[in-house]
Amino acid sequence: MYDVSEIRRDFPILSREVNGKPLVYLDNGASAQKPQCVIDAVTRGYAEEYANVHRGLHYLSNLATEKYEGVRGTVARFLGASDEEEIVFTSGTTEGINLVAYGWAMPRFEPGDEIVLSVMEHHANIVPWHFLRERQGVVIKWVDVDATGALDPQKVIDAIGPRTKLVAITHLSNVLGTAVDVKTICAAARARDVAVLVDGSQGAVHMPVDVEDIGCDFYAITGHKLYGPSGSGAIYIRRERMDEMRPFLGGGDMIREVHKDSVTYADPPMKFEAGTPGIVQQIGLGVALEYLMDLGMENVAAHEAGLASYAKARLNGLNWLQVQGHAPGKAAIFSFTLEGAAHAHDISTILDKKGVAVRAGHHCAGPLMDHLGVSATCRASFGLYNTEDEVDALVDALELAHELFA
Amino acid sequence: MYDVSEIRRDFPILSREVNGKPLVYLDNGASAQKPQCVIDAVTRGYAEEYANVHRGLHYLSNLATEKYEGVRGTVARFLGASDEEEIVFTSGTTEGINLVAYGWAMPRFEPGDEIVLSVMEHHANIVPWHFLRERQGVVIKWVDVDATGALDPQKVIDAIGPRTKLVAITHLSNVLGTAVDVKTICAAARARDVAVLVDGSQGAVHMPVDVEDIGCDFYAITGHKLYGPSGSGAIYIRRERMDEMRPFLGGGDMIREVHKDSVTYADPPMKFEAGTPGIVQQIGLGVALEYLMDLGMENVAAHEAGLASYAKARLNGLNWLQVQGHAPGKAAIFSFTLEGAAHAHDISTILDKKGVAVRAGHHCAGPLMDHLGVSATCRASFGLYNTEDEVDALVDALELAHELFA
Repeated sequence: MYDVSEIRRDFPILSREVNGKPLVYLDNGASAQKPQCVIDAVTRGYAEEYANVHRGLHYLSNLATEKYEGVRGTVARFLGASDEEEIVFTSGTTEGINLVAYGWAMPRFEPGDEIVLSVMEHHANIVPWHFLRERQGVVIKWVDVDATGALDPQKVIDAIGPRTKLVAITHLSNVLGTAVDVKTICAAARARDVAVLVDGSQGAVHMPVDVEDIGCDFYAITGHKLYGPSGSGAIYIRRERMDEMRPFLGGGDMIREVHKDSVTYADPPMKFEAGTPGIVQQIGLGVALEYLMDLGMENVAAHEAGLASYAKARLNGLNWLQVQGHAPGKAAIFSFTLEGAAHAHDISTILDKKGVAVRAGHHCAGPLMDHLGVSATCRASFGLYNTEDEVDALVDALELAHELFA
Repeated sequence: MYDVSEIRRDFPILSREVNGKPLVYLDNGASAQKPQCVIDAVTRGYAEEYANVHRGLHYLSNLATEKYEGVRGTVARFLGASDEEEIVFTSGTTEGINLVAYGWAMPRFEPGDEIVLSVMEHHANIVPWHFLRERQGVVIKWVDVDATGALDPQKVIDAIGPRTKLVAITHLSNVLGTAVDVKTICAAARARDVAVLVDGSQGAVHMPVDVEDIGCDFYAITGHKLYGPSGSGAIYIRRERMDEMRPFLGGGDMIREVHKDSVTYADPPMKFEAGTPGIVQQIGLGVALEYLMDLGMENVAAHEAGLASYAKARLNGLNWLQVQGHAPGKAAIFSFTLEGAAHAHDISTILDKKGVAVRAGHHCAGPLMDHLGVSATCRASFGLYNTEDEVDALVDALELAHELFA
């Protein structure tokens, strides 16, 4: 039984006030708040159990290593990967996608090779591919969403040509809330021997993920959106792709031997993890994922689906509000603009006075903003601890903003 | 007045026991413990003040951004940089040096161009240059240390030839404790228009640093060795070098505009910081650096110099122990082997039974191990909270190990 008021008590920040009002935190798309168990794990990690990992033989180092390495299996379970050696730790999705760009794509792609992207990708899943375009003549092929913000998987598949080497696509749009049928795309891409990278920054937060069922080659997640610490993250890389990759960051841990005139590398996944890692934040990520699995991602998804439909109905009642994205089954992420002169930034400032935290801007989705013909939107993005009362608080605050700017 | 027993009370982990003995933590070279003020900053960061930075306009986002961005000035002060825009945040030294390798060196270096390294570099300051050797034919020139482990700056300067583009050198050896006269090297390199990268992973921990006095182009530090959180760090990059660099990691925050067929980048330092950063750990790093500046790095250095000379005298009394490195003014870092069959790993295991945490292995310094003709050493590395009593505890434990293996 999913008891949201009980769950809220796990998140200490949710009981605070902002500007004299109870905090209504609807900026989960940017980053999620942390349950006490994650905070405690971080505190304990530093106050009682801290040492560097891997290279020590003393008690604290062994303890930290055991806890840290244990997270690899937790991530594998969370993502449905049967082999934890297909999990590479990162500082977040951005590093994960750059690892694929630098470690896999750059040494393999020739001028004229193509990468297929959807127009609703986040900059983290665009800029690394622009690097390949700028630096080595790779061609980016864009696939548009339809008028509702839905992405027809067949349009992605149709964009795959003989020069296509990679489809890089979000699992869930951070602006529109559109979920993408990545499984259908992966099956078709695989049949054409084209790799698929799924940006799971949002997808893994809002729905159960099974990378083996999806059939993708790469699936990147970021811990801070998954109720874990900042600077934590991981990427699933299918074994065959790992074997094709060269190392990305060079340093300690990722080597076997270093001499003056030669270097040999460790086996994956260590080959792709250089230097002292984010020890304590990865341990915290493990606790966050256990927390999510204890709740059950299908239960989280069901709760958020209820919130999405309630929010949709309430926001639809505001005829001066334009919500962007109406794809069937969209997640509880609502980007909107107000009729008239009010800028998204001004609206978010008004909402903030009422304790309602939303984001305003381009949401790191420049091409989508171009596609929608707007420069910025406000975005209310819900998480597992949000409530219908908070939808009402959002609507009340929007009505105030509308009055002020009308 | 530097009161080490008072300082020790700031570090909660130091009062714990390991294997039924009081913890004697001498693995600071691998990572340092955290004072309560850092732990509190991290806890507060998550429990009360958390949001994503830069992109929000709501209260918590503004608060987090202000705290996070405030650290840039703290790092600048700590390193003696007059312009905080010359500070780039990283996840640690490894990412910092890779940023220089990928962002500055790779697009500029031609086959046959040379990089000068000392034989005592850490893998973090070797492997990125091996990448350039492997991938684009850059030549690495090695400079040896003398029999005491000292590095004659003139030997480094003499290694600079017409094809030399970079000198990459440690400020302080993590194995030998040797301090390097980087200022003399920088002056000579500068006169020849050769850039100098200083690996400050250890240097900044044990002595006051002034990058403008040193005259280096790059100075990388890692937070977890500086009594800050894991996954925190920064690199000083002289403005002219920044202007020469292309972006490294692609994603959010480092862009100005992203369209389907073009991308423009933010001004430095943001140009080199992609994606949601390690928000809370960077805030914690700022607190750690303030803690160090409150103590005074010259006082820390003086305390550790006292420890070094006491430890040197005590260890010299063990005629079955070979200490590696006797350079004048060496830091309180002692790598050693025991006569006879005892492997460094076995010794560290015995010490651990007595609560004494040291490291055993190659210390991410393969070429130095080759130079010394050993495959591994034990290393006792001291920090600002260590005491002469702990030196005695180390010596007692070593005597036990010697008896066991004799």
